[in-house]
Amino acid sequence: MRKILLTGCSGFVARHYLDLLKDNNEDVKVLGVDIKPPAFVDRDFSDIFEYRSLNLLEKDEVEKLILNFGPTDVLHLAAFSSVKYSWEYPAECFQNNTSVFLSVVEAVRKLNGITGKSCRILSVGSSEIYGDVKEDMIPLKEDMEIHPLNPYAIAREAQEALSKVYAEHFDVDIILTRSFNHMGPGQDSRFVIPGFLDRIMALRLPLEGKGDRETVDEVVSGTIETGDVSIIRDFLDVRDVVRAYDILLKQGKPGEIYNICKGEGVSLREVIDVMGNLLNIKVTPEVNPEFVRPDDNHIIIGSPDKIFKDTGWKAEIPLEKTIQDMITERR
Amino acid sequence: MRKILLTGCSGFVARHYLDLLKDNNEDVKVLGVDIKPPAFVDRDFSDIFEYRSLNLLEKDEVEKLILNFGPTDVLHLAAFSSVKYSWEYPAECFQNNTSVFLSVVEAVRKLNGITGKSCRILSVGSSEIYGDVKEDMIPLKEDMEIHPLNPYAIAREAQEALSKVYAEHFDVDIILTRSFNHMGPGQDSRFVIPGFLDRIMALRLPLEGKGDRETVDEVVSGTIETGDVSIIRDFLDVRDVVRAYDILLKQGKPGEIYNICKGEGVSLREVIDVMGNLLNIKVTPEVNPEFVRPDDNHIIIGSPDKIFKDTGWKAEIPLEKTIQDMITERR
Repeated sequence: MRKILLTGCSGFVARHYLDLLKDNNEDVKVLGVDIKPPAFVDRDFSDIFEYRSLNLLEKDEVEKLILNFGPTDVLHLAAFSSVKYSWEYPAECFQNNTSVFLSVVEAVRKLNGITGKSCRILSVGSSEIYGDVKEDMIPLKEDMEIHPLNPYAIAREAQEALSKVYAEHFDVDIILTRSFNHMGPGQDSRFVIPGFLDRIMALRLPLEGKGDRETVDEVVSGTIETGDVSIIRDFLDVRDVVRAYDILLKQGKPGEIYNICKGEGVSLREVIDVMGNLLNIKVTPEVNPEFVRPDDNHIIIGSPDKIFKDTGWKAEIPLEKTIQDMITERR
Repeated sequence: MRKILLTGCSGFVARHYLDLLKDNNEDVKVLGVDIKPPAFVDRDFSDIFEYRSLNLLEKDEVEKLILNFGPTDVLHLAAFSSVKYSWEYPAECFQNNTSVFLSVVEAVRKLNGITGKSCRILSVGSSEIYGDVKEDMIPLKEDMEIHPLNPYAIAREAQEALSKVYAEHFDVDIILTRSFNHMGPGQDSRFVIPGFLDRIMALRLPLEGKGDRETVDEVVSGTIETGDVSIIRDFLDVRDVVRAYDILLKQGKPGEIYNICKGEGVSLREVIDVMGNLLNIKVTPEVNPEFVRPDDNHIIIGSPDKIFKDTGWKAEIPLEKTIQDMITERR
């Protein structure tokens, strides 16, 4: 039986990973750790999942828990992943990425020494690490030179470099991802895509007196404030992403870094249009210069060739379905 | 008047920096911080120097001290600089390099905001950052691609990357060094060169009964255990190094990284021969395979062109004088 340690278990992605395990009837035991407990209101995971409160910076506690649980796999989702806050709190960003990762890796190294087995760690990172991207580099491949541009990306770069030395010197089985923008039900509205959707759905609110929101088919129109909507990103559904994580835990190659991406670019304007079409709302984005981030790359598209070659994984869920499910969740 | 904050003030290099300031009769006030107080037994620095106990990980304390003192310059020597221990304590290595550096930079950023002036930070790093060096890369130049091979070097790489973003985004005036192997009086005998010297000088001890050690001119011979003595390094005198630090604080270009090196390679065997000649001892190195580090680069020589071009600094003290002064210190 697989025994999976799931860090950051109270986050948006962890919930979808548990859904996947449950849907697949996996014979698995998951120990989830986080600072705050998860809120699983609509599904019971208690047959496969147990929660333990843990601060990953307390490395003695991490070691105790890992030696005690004896995982076969670690899905390391815990991270300080906000670029914006990494500017305000760079030291915390390093602690909650690099130091936290080291707590886990060190404990797994000890565990391997005791059991003689090799526990696999999948450490989740971000396409943000590519940093300054020139258009002729698209699609981004894992072996390209990276140019991190903010403390978050630098912490991730350090994490990748540390993984390499741990893999080579201590034979620890670590796989890393560079996960591209992903979205789906349950995502916090502070992120750009769910934030758009909230504001677009709010455009219909003034009509509600006229009838049930579900049945309104009158086209409404309105504007929402945005940043630069011409920027292009490689958007994925979170459910494709967790499927990639599970396949990498089972079939990825030790020591490797994998892009998790679709390999297709969509502009923010197109995402807004999909939302508008599904909601029967004519949306006009109005650019507020305050929301335009000067450092943003215009285009970020990854190459999914490596993960496809090594595991057969590819993204399957179309953007329309992702957004429809996010709309349904909100209704 | 310059007001210099000196971190790591109780170390080997800091002492030589204070000697330089004093010898030059600099109009300067130095606030030294370290976890333990310095032991200046043979010279009084009290007219220019004051010590304050400080743990640089306590960032609120660091901020308070920096805002209160209002330095014009920071010479940031404090570091966790052992490659060996960085394998044993990688998390501590990151804390005591990257996090400590962030405490200082963050506080200086606030100070600049309050004073409207720009305090310069010179952050001292190591040639270790070059990592895996191929012989056709010699002499190493600052703009070459680096390949760090251990947690210490990775922490340094993160520090350089962070400096770049702080310089670009917050206009903080940071200069970084990649300092090559340096030695001189006062260096701890756990380092390779002073360790050799101790063991070579001990070869004469059995003769001491025959007369005063200073006047013995009989040639003695003996063996010392070593690692691979064919490896070549770019050795410098610590007094040249601190002169470079002072010149960089005065004339270096903001945001730049500088090699501090001689540009010449000397093998460990040659260093041992210089010691033997000065001491009239015929030394035979005996390689103990346990002391040979498999990851060591065979040859490390830097290019000092950039610092020479920007400041006119070059190393001046010959190896013989450095070793003679280390011998004199021991007698």
